[in-house]
Order: sequence, then C-alpha cells, then structure tokens
Amino acid sequence: MLQAPPAEPGMREDEIDTPALVIDLDAFEHNLDTMAALLAPTEAKLRAHAKTHKSPVVAKLQMARGAVGQCVQKVAEAEALAWGGVPDVLVTNQVVGPRKLARLAALSRICEVGLCADDEAQVVLAEQAAEAAGIRLKMLVEIDVGMARGGIEAGPPAVALAERIAASKHLIFGGLQAYHGSAQHIREPEKRAGAIAEAVARTRRTMEQLAQRGLSCAIVGGAGTGTFRHEAASGVYTEIQAGSYAFMDVDYAKNDDAPPFRHALFVATTVMSRAAPGIVVVDCGHKGVAVDSGMPGVWERPGLRFAGASDEHGKIMVEDAAAPALGERLRLVPGHCDPTVDRYDWYVGVRKGRVECLWPIAARGGMA
Amino acid sequence: MLQAPPAEPGMREDEIDTPALVIDLDAFEHNLDTMAALLAPTEAKLRAHAKTHKSPVVAKLQMARGAVGQCVQKVAEAEALAWGGVPDVLVTNQVVGPRKLARLAALSRICEVGLCADDEAQVVLAEQAAEAAGIRLKMLVEIDVGMARGGIEAGPPAVALAERIAASKHLIFGGLQAYHGSAQHIREPEKRAGAIAEAVARTRRTMEQLAQRGLSCAIVGGAGTGTFRHEAASGVYTEIQAGSYAFMDVDYAKNDDAPPFRHALFVATTVMSRAAPGIVVVDCGHKGVAVDSGMPGVWERPGLRFAGASDEHGKIMVEDAAAPALGERLRLVPGHCDPTVDRYDWYVGVRKGRVECLWPIAARGGMA
Repeated sequence: MLQAPPAEPGMREDEIDTPALVIDLDAFEHNLDTMAALLAPTEAKLRAHAKTHKSPVVAKLQMARGAVGQCVQKVAEAEALAWGGVPDVLVTNQVVGPRKLARLAALSRICEVGLCADDEAQVVLAEQAAEAAGIRLKMLVEIDVGMARGGIEAGPPAVALAERIAASKHLIFGGLQAYHGSAQHIREPEKRAGAIAEAVARTRRTMEQLAQRGLSCAIVGGAGTGTFRHEAASGVYTEIQAGSYAFMDVDYAKNDDAPPFRHALFVATTVMSRAAPGIVVVDCGHKGVAVDSGMPGVWERPGLRFAGASDEHGKIMVEDAAAPALGERLRLVPGHCDPTVDRYDWYVGVRKGRVECLWPIAARGGMA
Repeated sequence: MLQAPPAEPGMREDEIDTPALVIDLDAFEHNLDTMAALLAPTEAKLRAHAKTHKSPVVAKLQMARGAVGQCVQKVAEAEALAWGGVPDVLVTNQVVGPRKLARLAALSRICEVGLCADDEAQVVLAEQAAEAAGIRLKMLVEIDVGMARGGIEAGPPAVALAERIAASKHLIFGGLQAYHGSAQHIREPEKRAGAIAEAVARTRRTMEQLAQRGLSCAIVGGAGTGTFRHEAASGVYTEIQAGSYAFMDVDYAKNDDAPPFRHALFVATTVMSRAAPGIVVVDCGHKGVAVDSGMPGVWERPGLRFAGASDEHGKIMVEDAAAPALGERLRLVPGHCDPTVDRYDWYVGVRKGRVECLWPIAARGGMA
C-alpha cells in the first residue's frame, strides 16, 4: 500500500508528520547547478544515477541541466523512470532472469534502454529476450576496474565479450561500464586519485584493444560523487554516473576534499520521549534512516549526538546542550542517502520553512 | 508506487522474480501453532507484534490461534490493520503530534485502540485529540524495566501518571507497558532470565502501588521472542508482544536456548555475476535484506557465506563448496526480519516448491 503523504503544500515544516523525508530545495537546486557547472568544461556528460533518488521528477530536473539520461540498478527502477517520461535509461548492472529481461525489452518500445554484461551467459539470455520482443537491446561490457564485485577482467576477456555482443543481430554493443564504487570511500585524496588512475588505465587499455578489433564505445560510463572529478578529467569516461551529489550524505562529506555540494536531504523527526536521563528518543529508528554507513547526523544542533537506532526509535545523547522538548522537531542528515530514500513513498520539498511540493518516490522498493 | 508482485500463484519457486520475500508456509504455520501451544498453559495471552509482519492477513492467522489482538509501533501500522479488519490494536509506543493523534482517534470508531505514555505532556495531547474526536482513548503507562529507552520510572512516578490518565474524562487507563527489548539479545540464558526477573519485579511493584490507589491494569504487556517464556510464566504479564517468532531471524536463533521456532522467512535471490574469483554476486544487497543485526545466512548451502552487502549487490564467498551457477537461486535468512519485511510490498507464500499465495505487506513503509 502506498502511504499517504506526510504533508501538504503550504504547511509549515514543523507541521509535517514525522518521520518524513525532506528535501531542502535551495540546497538541492544548488547541487544540481553545481554539478552541471563542474562538468561543463569537461568532455564528460552526466548520466545521473537514479538508484539514489528513484524519482522521474528529480531525473527531469537533472536532464534540464544537461544530463543525457539516467542510470538505474534494477529493471523496476527503469520502469518507474520510463513510465514517468524519462527518455534514456541505462541499467548499470547485470540482469539475470527471463521475466526481468522481458520487462526490460518491453520498455525499449518507449525509452532508450541498455544493460550490462560480465559473462557470456548473460548475453545469451538478453539475446533471447530481445529476439522474443522483436527489438535490439543495447549491452555494455562491465569491466572490473578495482572493486572486485562484478565486472569481467579488463583487456582481452572484455574484448571477447564485446565481440560476442557485437556479433549478435539482437544486441547492440554499447560500450564499457567501468565503475569503481569502493574508491569513493578512501579517505586520503592521493590514494583515492590513485585508485581512479588505475581504473582509467584499465579502461583505456580495453578501449584501445576494442578499437583494434573495430569496436568503438558510444558510452564509457562510471564514477560516483566521491571521485567523479577524476573520471571527468580523464578524457576516457564519456558519462559520469554520480547520484548522491544531489542530496549528499554524511559519508561523502567526511572526505577532506569533499566536492562542493550541500546537505539537501533530511529526515524530519520528532522528540517522542525524554523519560530516560541524558537522552531524548525520537520517532525515527533504522526503519526510517539507513545506518549501514553509520549513524545520521543531527543538523545544526551541536551537543546532540544520534547514538543508536532500534527499529522505530532513535536515541539522541544530550552531551553539551539543553535537551530538546517533547514534540520538538529535529532534522537528521542520513549517513547514506540511497537506502534511506528507498524506505519512503514521498519527498517533501521545503523552502524557507514551508512545504512547497510533494514528489512520489516512484521506484521506491523497486527490487527486481 | 506499489511494486508489482514478483510471482503468481502456481509458479515454481525458482520462477519468482528476485529479490523477493518468501514465506515457507509449513514453517510459518508451525511457528504460529507452537506459540499458541507454549502460551496455552500460562495466564498470558498473545498480542502479537505487527511491527514484524505489517500484514492484516498474518494478524488474522495469529488471532485465529488465540491472539487477543495486535501491537504496532506507529499509527500508520494501526491504520493498515484496522482497515484490514483487525479488531483490537495497541500502539506500544508514545504518539506525539496532533495529526497522528487525530488519525488514531478517528480509528477508534472501527477498532479497539490504545497507546502509551511516559510523560504528562503526551497525556495532554491525547486528551485533546480524544475530546476533539468525541471518543475516549485507552492509554497505558510505559515503564522503564531496564532498557533505558522510553518508559517512565517504575513505582511512584508511573502511578502518578496513571492517576492523571484515569482522572481524564477523555481517556481510559489501560494498564502497563513493560517491554525489555534489549534483554532478548543477551546470549547467556541466566543473565537474560535475570534481566526479565528484574523487569517483572519493577512491574509487580508498580501494580501493587496502583492497586493501593484503586487502579487495576486490564493489560500488562511486554516481552518478545527472545524472552517471552519468562514473562508468560511470571504471573504478572497478561499479554505477550512477541512478533519475530512467526518468522525467526538469525539473531534470535543464536541464543543457545532459542525457542523452538523455525526459519520461515527468506529472501530469494539470484546469482547475477561470478566474474570475480572466489565470490559470486547475488541481486540482493542491503536495500533487499536488513544488515543492522549482521549479514544474512545462506540457507542450506554449507560453504557459502554472505560476506558483504552494498546497495543492490550481495557478495557471497565461496569457501568450501562448488560455486553456484549464474542464474542459480539461493535463499537468504535475514539477520533481522522486521526491517527486511518493511522493504517489500509482497509476501510470496511457498509450499513444496510452489507459490501458494501472495499477501500484500499493507503497512510497509508506515512510518508516521
């Protein structure tokens, strides 16, 4: 069941039912504009990752500022975007399973779609789905550029897979997917730059070998909020797949050289108990804010520390501040935006203390 | 947007689109029957906690076996249950906020409802909502029995709050909420029993002091899957609020004296990449299975270990087994059922390898 929206346009921020996912619209628009400005002098375009925002509304605001399309991780996310009018969606992931592939192939009638492979078995499955649907599917080869999660070995194994795709009359070879997600969380700037330099080297070498076989890459995609300035400057990557930049989370902001994005996403929460000494309990636990990358911050309330989350309760230690009152509102800064967004049905857009808009998180829960 | 169901009745289990939330119906029914049998010789009744299952369908199956009603943590959960025909719902939590209280008061026209307080300010808010709605709200006093999260101090402070509730013409004093959640995760059986003995002592003392003031407790509620046999045997608790017993998760099963429930809830997942040596990657990360209590288990596949979850990918180490094939299905046992359920729109009920039913998770995402 879709949950009812927690607010109405025109309300004051402190009237929103909590916990609720709040976008600070001024900060959010600053982030979209900043990314567009940072990429403008480079050869790379933005293909923003919708795994973060899961919303055709946000996608269109990004595309209005120059993004060439959207990335997703799941077919269900591709559906939500295409049904919401987004014209170009790349699944930056393998898709394994005949029902999923049939859904993706069906989508290609209303939207430019693509997907990735790191194994010939995936190519065979995609080929069957495309043939059955009477369309051609665009398929990129995902190479491992240092994360050791998915991705075929760069160089000859990747080239062989690309040739297999290019030889299929039901598929189109779309280029390389070369994402180094874990590099984004390396705190030392030099080590992080070194990891991306290695990713660029593996990607360039593979492109050169592909060219020797007569194959060019329409897309060379990768990068995230923690590293995209390196990939964008590489001359190799054509598409930047950052997502979190739109909202920012605590983890990316920890890097010393964090990019100039503002915190734009918050979970609004209410103090519901102050019975226990030294703590206040808020109505948001880990069902309401993801804690896989650490606890959320408490926004602009020095002396308050979010110390622990159970399912529906958050414990805030009152360390060097007056305890907030029962019923008082706090803003939490998610430790990790993407899974936090995925728990909610609605964004509540706020500007100058008033609710300005409600946007459905259309791909929320899009697992398959 | 509600996500489409990942399966249809009659399908084979290996045709379900993954990741998907699967109930093993034989194990699930065993668990419901077992709990009914364990409580039958005691004076305590089950008021199962719907924060785990979030489904009126599951609630009714529990009530058909003797449960007197359901617990919830949020007003949105109470709504989903009441709208689904559950006749008696207790919010085992404080409710702070005029919109939430108005919704709960409205619900009392179709369902027996109650809520908890640990502060007089909550009593005042509930009183106002009840008066505005022209109904009486049942309110329990939550006492701290050792968890130091919510709950007023047992004894005289709790008695004073109960008297305040009982004196209101818009409220009904409903009894005591005395939940010791953290005791459930104490591994040593004696220490766990000791924690509950202390909870029982604080509760009994408060009841005696209430009786001296002429107040009796229609409900004395608490207990969870990890401790309920102690509370049920105490002679003090009238209602047991266990929820996880229906499904069981990895964490509760770690206790040496784990109660005789079976793993009944799984996340079905598919191997989507085996490009990296020594691991296979499945299509379920922490968006699909909660990791706040640790990684999921891999069901009946010795030698495979779920070692890490990113947003949409799970890394399974192949330690002492043949690597599963691309496309092969695995069942994951959630480390923590409650937040895992809250990520999905549908239960897929499976028996003997076939999909038997689909049940909507009606209160999924019910935050406020």
